[in-house]
Amino acid sequence: MTKHFQREIEKLKKMILSVGTLAEEAVWKAVKAVEDRDASLASTVIGKDHEIDQIEVDVEEECLKVLALHQPVAADLRFIVAVIKINSDLERIGDLAVNIAEQAVPLASRERLDFPFDMHGMAEKAQSMLRRSLDALVNYDAKLALQVCGSDDEVDAMNREMYGKIQNSIRRKPEQIEQFIHLLTVSRNLERIADHATNIAEDVIYAAEGAIVRHKAEKYREQLGQ
Amino acid sequence: MTKHFQREIEKLKKMILSVGTLAEEAVWKAVKAVEDRDASLASTVIGKDHEIDQIEVDVEEECLKVLALHQPVAADLRFIVAVIKINSDLERIGDLAVNIAEQAVPLASRERLDFPFDMHGMAEKAQSMLRRSLDALVNYDAKLALQVCGSDDEVDAMNREMYGKIQNSIRRKPEQIEQFIHLLTVSRNLERIADHATNIAEDVIYAAEGAIVRHKAEKYREQLGQ
Repeated sequence: MTKHFQREIEKLKKMILSVGTLAEEAVWKAVKAVEDRDASLASTVIGKDHEIDQIEVDVEEECLKVLALHQPVAADLRFIVAVIKINSDLERIGDLAVNIAEQAVPLASRERLDFPFDMHGMAEKAQSMLRRSLDALVNYDAKLALQVCGSDDEVDAMNREMYGKIQNSIRRKPEQIEQFIHLLTVSRNLERIADHATNIAEDVIYAAEGAIVRHKAEKYREQLGQ
Repeated sequence: MTKHFQREIEKLKKMILSVGTLAEEAVWKAVKAVEDRDASLASTVIGKDHEIDQIEVDVEEECLKVLALHQPVAADLRFIVAVIKINSDLERIGDLAVNIAEQAVPLASRERLDFPFDMHGMAEKAQSMLRRSLDALVNYDAKLALQVCGSDDEVDAMNREMYGKIQNSIRRKPEQIEQFIHLLTVSRNLERIADHATNIAEDVIYAAEGAIVRHKAEKYREQLGQ
């Protein structure tokens, strides 16, 4: 790897991490806006989404430039392709944060619900998956990435549980249906964020190991003895 | 463009179209399974998803091979990168079809709902977006792709309308809440399919024109005089 190319890779890592940080921040603030019924914080999240959109475009252009100028092969090529795909996942996580924030606005004007939804816990799990998948990317750490894939089931289970709880709550308090549906939307969006973190982790494994593990993470886990 | 490279591009086009056809078929059958409350058709859709998963992996490997062997630049490079991203969107559309099919299973064992949900119309719109985005890809037709981006708002509006309808219906018939929530899930998944078709169309515009239109389709539409 030439020094120049090495510098390009380092630059790309920094760029993708900054998209990641923005996406992570957006999710965190969106969830806080819902928790605190804070319409103003929600508006901030919605208003800042264009920053993620812009940096996504910059990252993709940089990747294309590196591909055209350096024509990398093998692991280097896989890294750039992984960054292109991960970039796209991060931008969509930003959109999902906006979806969550949008629920905070109508919720802010209504009375608080007495509802057993561990939104905070679910958000923490999804966020931790996102953070670990990005750590795995910059450190080419396939084992860490594989752990992230394993966490997806937990968030899926939390989301499924939500459906049952919401149905019971609506039956008990049908007059609050609108608020319950907003909470269901939050839960579903958190579940999708965890899905995107899983996609990122799968792309990291591919970049680091050359193994395409999507659709067969289980098998790969056995090989790694995890 | 060398003859050999030209052949590779044609091969990639065929491959991505076959992923597209499988994804389209899966969506269609999943919607039909829900409409007809046909649990057996739903199982077929769920069982066939691995085919899309496998061909997605093949397409990506082929793209990486073409990048490494031919080291394309400019429009050719953009085309390959677009295929990588579109491939990923198509695979996720396959997953969304599975989500829809999964709603058919519990619905099949329940009585039919009297509910004004134009699922068929919504599915047709989403499907048409998907088909046109793939047509646009193989014909490098940025204008057609741009029309697809414009259709996304219609599907979004149909999904938003669903939320209101569902809430009213649950208020009227709270004992059918479970079924209504399944229908809401179908609607949401169709809306996400339309989103993915939009992403595909945006990538086609990028491949064909070199313009990154995501987040600024409006401006681009003005330039094209549409």
